[in-house]
Amino acid sequence: MIRSETDIRVRYVETDAMRFVHHANYLAWFEMARIEMLDGLDMPYHKMEEEGYLLPVLKAELNYKQAAYFNDRLKVFCYVREKPRVRIKIDYEVFRHETLLCRGSTEHAFINKRGKPVRPVKSIMDTFAKAIDSN
Amino acid sequence: MIRSETDIRVRYVETDAMRFVHHANYLAWFEMARIEMLDGLDMPYHKMEEEGYLLPVLKAELNYKQAAYFNDRLKVFCYVREKPRVRIKIDYEVFRHETLLCRGSTEHAFINKRGKPVRPVKSIMDTFAKAIDSN
Amino acid sequence: MIRSETDIRVRYVETDAMRFVHHANYLAWFEMARIEMLDGLDMPYHKMEEEGYLLPVLKAELNYKQAAYFNDRLKVFCYVREKPRVRIKIDYEVFRHETLLCRGSTEHAFINKRGKPVRPVKSIMDTFAKAIDSN
Amino acid sequence: MIRSETDIRVRYVETDAMRFVHHANYLAWFEMARIEMLDGLDMPYHKMEEEGYLLPVLKAELNYKQAAYFNDRLKVFCYVREKPRVRIKIDYEVFRHETLLCRGSTEHAFINKRGKPVRPVKSIMDTFAKAIDSN
Repeated sequence: MIRSETDIRVRYVETDAMRFVHHANYLAWFEMARIEMLDGLDMPYHKMEEEGYLLPVLKAELNYKQAAYFNDRLKVFCYVREKPRVRIKIDYEVFRHETLLCRGSTEHAFINKRGKPVRPVKSIMDTFAKAIDSN
Repeated sequence: MIRSETDIRVRYVETDAMRFVHHANYLAWFEMARIEMLDGLDMPYHKMEEEGYLLPVLKAELNYKQAAYFNDRLKVFCYVREKPRVRIKIDYEVFRHETLLCRGSTEHAFINKRGKPVRPVKSIMDTFAKAIDSN
Repeated sequence: MIRSETDIRVRYVETDAMRFVHHANYLAWFEMARIEMLDGLDMPYHKMEEEGYLLPVLKAELNYKQAAYFNDRLKVFCYVREKPRVRIKIDYEVFRHETLLCRGSTEHAFINKRGKPVRPVKSIMDTFAKAIDSN
Repeated sequence: MIRSETDIRVRYVETDAMRFVHHANYLAWFEMARIEMLDGLDMPYHKMEEEGYLLPVLKAELNYKQAAYFNDRLKVFCYVREKPRVRIKIDYEVFRHETLLCRGSTEHAFINKRGKPVRPVKSIMDTFAKAIDSN
């Protein structure tokens, strides 16, 4: 399993008139978490884009348990449990200290610059496979 | 079943460097759609808030089928199929003409201003029940 | 002078924990307003991009007078007073009925796809000049 | 003079179809920078809100010099040069290494929870005055 950890400090702009964080921002936090997860595999997302792959989101699920507030210091944990094929599935948990605020997942396709789904090169697949096996 | 329809014109700020709409914006569009759905029931959301109810999102699911682009004219259809109890479930479809771009759902709790889940007053429940039955 | 008018209904996601609209959203509203202004000149922004021009913002100024709230119905007025050269200056006013909420301006350069400032083709310049003179 | 420094890593969601950062995000970055500036004075913004003060933006100016891109590591410098009275003026500079990307400023009023402009308590004023004098 791949596992990474990202620190978030809640921005004022992320709150709404209910006085807590607007639910759409968790998708942006998931995105930051998977970018840091890819960094940790030494396979930064901007390099994947330079090599011609995009990783658009095909599915997203979010389960909100508790509200987050301005200035909260959060941790977003990111997990890849299965080796990606044409798709990759990523799970997330957002915590404020011991409190789980949100649990979710996203699924992504590898596509090329013309928008066609592609199987990424072997080096990318091997990096995921190795990281999943070694933990 | 309750059904409503909301028109969206994609804003430039909603796109990202993949050149299509960032996936988080669909949650904002779902929100606009359910607000217009409540308008259609003559039960506007801001009035529900004034009466002491908030409707935070507990769950969200999104299935992205096709990308949306800057300047696209979209329709967001919003459906309530089951009478709400403490929770309400809403389904959404986003179309560009005949093309389905995204299908999703959200689940909400009625809570009071102190954040406690509550069963809303009978008049709100009756409005939903009547609208679901009559269509 | 060119003058256009754009209708906005404030989205929930645009509010923040102060309970009114976060100030950054006015820049997105200005953007919508100038896109509708260009529509009105029959020179839609997405076509300008297809022809190879981008109009990035070089300067922005905003003067906030009154807060906007969720669900407010606003009008954004957009004005071009001087013929553009390499730059174009646009003024904006945001009103809720008779109340001025915000006054601002943006300045833009015409650049090509490689990021170089360019003077746009004569047809674009002529369209602006004619529209400014005729009103 | 008060001076603070905030680190930003550009988020994917902050880019737009021009492939660089949408100009509205700089206002959110300025906001983060002034929140960290207040932290540095041991006068965190969320505490000021708890004590009954809000600091809404009355004016903002932005001068964009160079584009920022996804994944850029930026520094936002924040300066308070004059002692605040009913208003406070803050200047900002956004750098990528040695390159100035944006220079701007915001002006804020102290208001109370009912939206009335107020002069903040002496302890707040003294903290600003002392920090401005001591640097």
